[in-house]
Amino acid sequence: MSEMRDLKATTMPLLDSVVERLCHPSSLDAVWHRPAQGAAMPSLKDLTEIMERLRAAIFPGYFGSARVWRESMRYHLSANLDTIYRMLCEQIVRGFCFGCAGDSNPCTSCESDGEKAAGAFMDRLPEIRRLLAGDAKAAYEGDPAATSPGETIFCYPSMQAMLHHRIAHELYELNVPVIPRIISEMSHSATGIDLHPGATIGEEFFIDHGTGVVIGETCVIGRNCRLYQGVTLGALSFPKNADGTLTKGIPRHPILCDGVTVYAGATILGRVTIGKGAVIGGNVWITQDVPEGARILQERPRA
Amino acid sequence: MSEMRDLKATTMPLLDSVVERLCHPSSLDAVWHRPAQGAAMPSLKDLTEIMERLRAAIFPGYFGSARVWRESMRYHLSANLDTIYRMLCEQIVRGFCFGCAGDSNPCTSCESDGEKAAGAFMDRLPEIRRLLAGDAKAAYEGDPAATSPGETIFCYPSMQAMLHHRIAHELYELNVPVIPRIISEMSHSATGIDLHPGATIGEEFFIDHGTGVVIGETCVIGRNCRLYQGVTLGALSFPKNADGTLTKGIPRHPILCDGVTVYAGATILGRVTIGKGAVIGGNVWITQDVPEGARILQERPRA
Amino acid sequence: MSEMRDLKATTMPLLDSVVERLCHPSSLDAVWHRPAQGAAMPSLKDLTEIMERLRAAIFPGYFGSARVWRESMRYHLSANLDTIYRMLCEQIVRGFCFGCAGDSNPCTSCESDGEKAAGAFMDRLPEIRRLLAGDAKAAYEGDPAATSPGETIFCYPSMQAMLHHRIAHELYELNVPVIPRIISEMSHSATGIDLHPGATIGEEFFIDHGTGVVIGETCVIGRNCRLYQGVTLGALSFPKNADGTLTKGIPRHPILCDGVTVYAGATILGRVTIGKGAVIGGNVWITQDVPEGARILQERPRA
Amino acid sequence: MSEMRDLKATTMPLLDSVVERLCHPSSLDAVWHRPAQGAAMPSLKDLTEIMERLRAAIFPGYFGSARVWRESMRYHLSANLDTIYRMLCEQIVRGFCFGCAGDSNPCTSCESDGEKAAGAFMDRLPEIRRLLAGDAKAAYEGDPAATSPGETIFCYPSMQAMLHHRIAHELYELNVPVIPRIISEMSHSATGIDLHPGATIGEEFFIDHGTGVVIGETCVIGRNCRLYQGVTLGALSFPKNADGTLTKGIPRHPILCDGVTVYAGATILGRVTIGKGAVIGGNVWITQDVPEGARILQERPRA
Amino acid sequence: MSEMRDLKATTMPLLDSVVERLCHPSSLDAVWHRPAQGAAMPSLKDLTEIMERLRAAIFPGYFGSARVWRESMRYHLSANLDTIYRMLCEQIVRGFCFGCAGDSNPCTSCESDGEKAAGAFMDRLPEIRRLLAGDAKAAYEGDPAATSPGETIFCYPSMQAMLHHRIAHELYELNVPVIPRIISEMSHSATGIDLHPGATIGEEFFIDHGTGVVIGETCVIGRNCRLYQGVTLGALSFPKNADGTLTKGIPRHPILCDGVTVYAGATILGRVTIGKGAVIGGNVWITQDVPEGARILQERPRA
Amino acid sequence: MSEMRDLKATTMPLLDSVVERLCHPSSLDAVWHRPAQGAAMPSLKDLTEIMERLRAAIFPGYFGSARVWRESMRYHLSANLDTIYRMLCEQIVRGFCFGCAGDSNPCTSCESDGEKAAGAFMDRLPEIRRLLAGDAKAAYEGDPAATSPGETIFCYPSMQAMLHHRIAHELYELNVPVIPRIISEMSHSATGIDLHPGATIGEEFFIDHGTGVVIGETCVIGRNCRLYQGVTLGALSFPKNADGTLTKGIPRHPILCDGVTVYAGATILGRVTIGKGAVIGGNVWITQDVPEGARILQERPRA
Repeated sequence: MSEMRDLKATTMPLLDSVVERLCHPSSLDAVWHRPAQGAAMPSLKDLTEIMERLRAAIFPGYFGSARVWRESMRYHLSANLDTIYRMLCEQIVRGFCFGCAGDSNPCTSCESDGEKAAGAFMDRLPEIRRLLAGDAKAAYEGDPAATSPGETIFCYPSMQAMLHHRIAHELYELNVPVIPRIISEMSHSATGIDLHPGATIGEEFFIDHGTGVVIGETCVIGRNCRLYQGVTLGALSFPKNADGTLTKGIPRHPILCDGVTVYAGATILGRVTIGKGAVIGGNVWITQDVPEGARILQERPRA
Repeated sequence: MSEMRDLKATTMPLLDSVVERLCHPSSLDAVWHRPAQGAAMPSLKDLTEIMERLRAAIFPGYFGSARVWRESMRYHLSANLDTIYRMLCEQIVRGFCFGCAGDSNPCTSCESDGEKAAGAFMDRLPEIRRLLAGDAKAAYEGDPAATSPGETIFCYPSMQAMLHHRIAHELYELNVPVIPRIISEMSHSATGIDLHPGATIGEEFFIDHGTGVVIGETCVIGRNCRLYQGVTLGALSFPKNADGTLTKGIPRHPILCDGVTVYAGATILGRVTIGKGAVIGGNVWITQDVPEGARILQERPRA
Repeated sequence: MSEMRDLKATTMPLLDSVVERLCHPSSLDAVWHRPAQGAAMPSLKDLTEIMERLRAAIFPGYFGSARVWRESMRYHLSANLDTIYRMLCEQIVRGFCFGCAGDSNPCTSCESDGEKAAGAFMDRLPEIRRLLAGDAKAAYEGDPAATSPGETIFCYPSMQAMLHHRIAHELYELNVPVIPRIISEMSHSATGIDLHPGATIGEEFFIDHGTGVVIGETCVIGRNCRLYQGVTLGALSFPKNADGTLTKGIPRHPILCDGVTVYAGATILGRVTIGKGAVIGGNVWITQDVPEGARILQERPRA
Repeated sequence: MSEMRDLKATTMPLLDSVVERLCHPSSLDAVWHRPAQGAAMPSLKDLTEIMERLRAAIFPGYFGSARVWRESMRYHLSANLDTIYRMLCEQIVRGFCFGCAGDSNPCTSCESDGEKAAGAFMDRLPEIRRLLAGDAKAAYEGDPAATSPGETIFCYPSMQAMLHHRIAHELYELNVPVIPRIISEMSHSATGIDLHPGATIGEEFFIDHGTGVVIGETCVIGRNCRLYQGVTLGALSFPKNADGTLTKGIPRHPILCDGVTVYAGATILGRVTIGKGAVIGGNVWITQDVPEGARILQERPRA
Repeated sequence: MSEMRDLKATTMPLLDSVVERLCHPSSLDAVWHRPAQGAAMPSLKDLTEIMERLRAAIFPGYFGSARVWRESMRYHLSANLDTIYRMLCEQIVRGFCFGCAGDSNPCTSCESDGEKAAGAFMDRLPEIRRLLAGDAKAAYEGDPAATSPGETIFCYPSMQAMLHHRIAHELYELNVPVIPRIISEMSHSATGIDLHPGATIGEEFFIDHGTGVVIGETCVIGRNCRLYQGVTLGALSFPKNADGTLTKGIPRHPILCDGVTVYAGATILGRVTIGKGAVIGGNVWITQDVPEGARILQERPRA
Repeated sequence: MSEMRDLKATTMPLLDSVVERLCHPSSLDAVWHRPAQGAAMPSLKDLTEIMERLRAAIFPGYFGSARVWRESMRYHLSANLDTIYRMLCEQIVRGFCFGCAGDSNPCTSCESDGEKAAGAFMDRLPEIRRLLAGDAKAAYEGDPAATSPGETIFCYPSMQAMLHHRIAHELYELNVPVIPRIISEMSHSATGIDLHPGATIGEEFFIDHGTGVVIGETCVIGRNCRLYQGVTLGALSFPKNADGTLTKGIPRHPILCDGVTVYAGATILGRVTIGKGAVIGGNVWITQDVPEGARILQERPRA
């Protein structure tokens, strides 16, 4: 039990007044969101559990039970996937309801959209694992301090970020509202790597150290790229609509071709293309295309 | 139960010796802190629970139970606020005791100061919600990737940082020791945004991405400002006292007027004023005042 | 109980197929790691508990129970250390098995190596506390916003990072595989400070704010140094072996002599030496030695 | 984590075969029950939580939080009752589905029946408390070892049995299937008192010690009665239907008028009436009516 | 999370009305008990934890951690006893406050009485263990189905009952209100053995099977006695005071001298003395003294 | 956190002295049991979890998750049985070690005996379910208050007792030490029915109400028998060995042929045979054989 002070009778009117003001529509309406048809809101707690279960399904032995054997893996995997599917299906439906307009009979379509999306996502799990195995290989090969691919699975922020991203990106591609972003932010919080679920990332991707990396919604990254901490792949400016609001969804972030390396603190802004195998030096600021194989280093004032 | 190796009899003398050394005053005194009158220390665990409860009270439906209805909200809000008040009151009193000199009869005053502060804080909750609703609106309007204000409440690091800051700042204003800083660091850990509880921040504030942002104790930020990741609003130098120790508490951080935007990685140091509507470009380094409406961009060496 | 949708019979073949594919050697082998002799894998959950227990043993009153008294501290410390030793011993043995080649009779040697390392580590605990008490003093003296050393123990990211580092470094010195890195990443995740367990760090070390700091494996840092957020002490290039793979383990990160200060965002790369008492300004980029007492500031283009 | 042995590959075929046999309809059908419309089954775990919440609502301070004050009781009571209503409503609907025939559209009626019953039950809570307060008074007055009515609320099995009975009986009267019996058995398990939810029991009822008491479904007990351990108020014989099955539901248990005392181990069988104020001695066996005021003692062979 | 139905707006007035009625003094006063000086009520949850900790301290290895070694037992015992003392002290003080008259300044005396009682109780722990070791020996020797004394410690109801009784009786002797009775009822609930904490029980006592046994407050039982299930050692009648209330506290239950055996279902009532080594047969009813060495068997009508 | 009083320095010597006395061999040896080879003791906590998992495997939907569907049952059953096998195997090995003599190399044989027994037990699970389904049918048919077999599975003490018994009896037949008895006592505690794991019980067995029933180790009960509360099937006397100790293991309890009914409170003692279809009336005392079809009623003194 948490430790508490007793409440004095004189404090009651104060609390009553606070409740009154917090329940007043003038206060409540500004933060109140009611999903279509009174559906429940997505649950951070359940999404957290889903991510833990997915991690254990994708990397058995590393996460979840530390005592997993090949012999009975099928047993636990079956049970775990059944639970994942049913929990995720519930959250995806809530996601659709959260976003839907709420006219006529939205929930029927949210339900069927949600179930379809959950099924399609499950079907992609083996592919997600294949991609993540490639990312672990890239991490091991890219970091002289790494002693085995297994070590990178256990504790590299890059692997945690990519686990979340490859899952969130599938859901993003399936047009699931809100949920992909919630998943991305879980990993942003844990790793300091801010990977928008919309970004398209090729095989064998590695981010070293990672803190402060930002990769925007419409980025396209090829195979075998490597980033270091503090790299920004961002937008240069935000086009506005006639009414002054931001235009949402247009391509505005960089394209990195295969084999690009971007060193720490570099900033690449706008829909520019960084050519195959190019190397962008630390702290460099890029707003134009870079040709294949180029090595861009900042001429910097020396101390 | 956690898994353990058995202890060998031969290891006992070693453990005995370690205990002996850790209990010896020469070791213990360096880390030992006894609050005035033997009061208990603040509890991270209880403060974490308090923050979760506050979050559920301010944003019902998003956090805490995913199934909250307007009909019975008053019920749960009343019970939750009663618990919050009593838990927080206990922690605030501990905070005062942690900091007090411990002479004559400090705890009587700590108790009455603590209860007064807890009551005053509760009274501010509706205002804190109003400010946070404004921050959510700013986040939605400022990020082309955001699909609704609700999405920003659910998962934007900016909202998590501001929730903690607006709460911690109230407690800071009420001169509660230690507790505000503990609350700030909870959100620093989760978001990578280091917002000192002393900073004064106006309405509709938004930090995009956020990792690496540092906002110092004596900053003053106007309405409708926007920062990007990696921005530092820091001190230029620390004046020292005659005895060589740092002078604590004097204004040493920037003032941002209304409508200022600071792009990623910019550094603004010292008690300078950034004029209304000014725009500070990415990676720019500022140690002097900037006039109203200015657009400061670094002339940068191109690659 | 988590909330779940019911499973439709038509979804079963899909799940069956996913299980089939995830259990197929072509998928499983890429992520499967079996420690020598079928030992269990290290457990993140148990390592987390071990770190919490160590924190409570080193800083009694601050962490763990908020009600600890000198009188009975020996009781709880003894019991806690006994549990720590036995849990840690299990994890260290798993760490050795995780890394060992698995030929002839590895586990006998892993067990004896593990027990030896666990004992040696416990013996170092009083020294670890002594070093951390110095770090708390440095944090208090280095930050004008700090009101007591106790406050820094409670909530400064620098203290959390150093707690993990000084523990992980001891284990690294004892050649324990994987475990030190897992411990480091716990703190990297919580603080945004990426401190490789191999780095050697002197007494009274302080990192202010901390987000984005990277300190590489072969760094050597003297007494009384201070870093700010976003500082990188990294490698300049990675020598490759004849076969094209990275050469692991050679000294490739900076040496900081006693009393060096490095301001926010500075980057120091390669096996360079920063002389005693030198000050490196914000955002400066260093790849060469810096003499004792030097003050290096970037000549920067002003806005 | 629980401690486990590793699984040998040779054990797999055995487990596979056990699963096969347990999933085979020949095994599963005998224990499989599917509520109407695929509704979920009642949940023992949720019913246990409901009973704990009801106990805290009826006897504030004794159960649930030990720190309850009159000042904020309304807060917590409101929130608790809202939760109780919503949890109970779910369980009652499940109870109706568990029992319903499952033709045409049963669940619509189960839902509306369930919600009606849950509302009616809530409305009776103040009356249930009034009756239980009377039972506590009776316990205090009837036991020379009791030192206050509060002590009986805290720990007398009679009070635990009556708490469950008075709740279960209300639900029984509302024709809720299964749930009342589950609640009765919770208290039977804890107290050894087997009180069928159908029994009608008057005010100020007390059972001393209680273990082994059995009170049948159609018993009617007046005001101010007292029983001791091992008393049976049972049926004498079970009439059978033409098809040989037992006739369910007909009155077959005793009637005790006001003020009857039955001492330990006495057995009263069949639809007999024990007159007002009668006293039935220990171990006496009764199958016929007993007149008002009678004192029935067994002539017993003395040792 | 428990599963809940949504609340309909139409149900709100009903719940409001129930809250209103439950908070009304006419309802609340009948069940409301406020300890002297507003102290908190005893906590069943904490008392349950205390009993589990005591059980682990008295029978190490059997209860609590299954992995306890002689080598480090002192460590865990010290920490456990420190916690037991501090938790029990709190509960005993609450017990005194629960029972005290509440005039002038009761709590000062409750506090000092409570601390004195807690200390005196701790001092008796080794003696309590000695007595329980004797009870385990008696159980092993008295039951042909027992295979070792250890088995009786693990799972015999007699041992569970005596563990609770020997602890509760010490507290009873120290005049602690309410708490002993709560502890007794924990074991009554688990074993069906109703042992009043006031009863004085000699060494090497064994109750076989146990369900339904009742032993009254003023019983005195010698060494080496044995009872079977369903035995009652009760009062014959309750003398009343002039005002018609029961006289509390006078000797009214049997005395069993050393070596008495009472078979299943026997009833012994009133302040009678059963002489040394006497044997009371099953179902026998005794209300008079029985001489030393007698064998009392019921002449029973045979079938 | 539990609530605690602070510890006074003056209490320390007392606690030290209690620890000293509890650790002294003169106190510890009387309750200390060290299994062969220093194996861990059986764990009540793990056995409790095993029983809950077995219950959910045998009666899916009733216990464990309330949302189980035929479609994915195989998934969860497989995973659950794998866990059950591995946990149970560990406990059975501990059981063998608990009981073994500890000479030469006992643990090798305990391990292999334990694994063999665990496997043999799993193989019997479908048969255990078949028997329990018969018991549920008997309960439904035997109790006029039962409304469906499902209701008896949910909450009849008879079903809980038989679940534990049929499991414990299998382990008893496999010569597993201690564990069967621990399992039996779990159900004895919950139901008041004391069913020794050695007793052999035929199909379709039902105990109504159950409190106080005792069924001894060597009982043999045929098909379709029914008992009521308070029935004892016990031993008449315990033969002693030449050295005065009890002879363990010889047949000493009654045999009930098929279709026997025994009413409440009846006592049947010794190795007597109750013939097929016999009916034993309430409270009757039997120590001799009863012929087939007999109806034994006590001639009782009427009041």
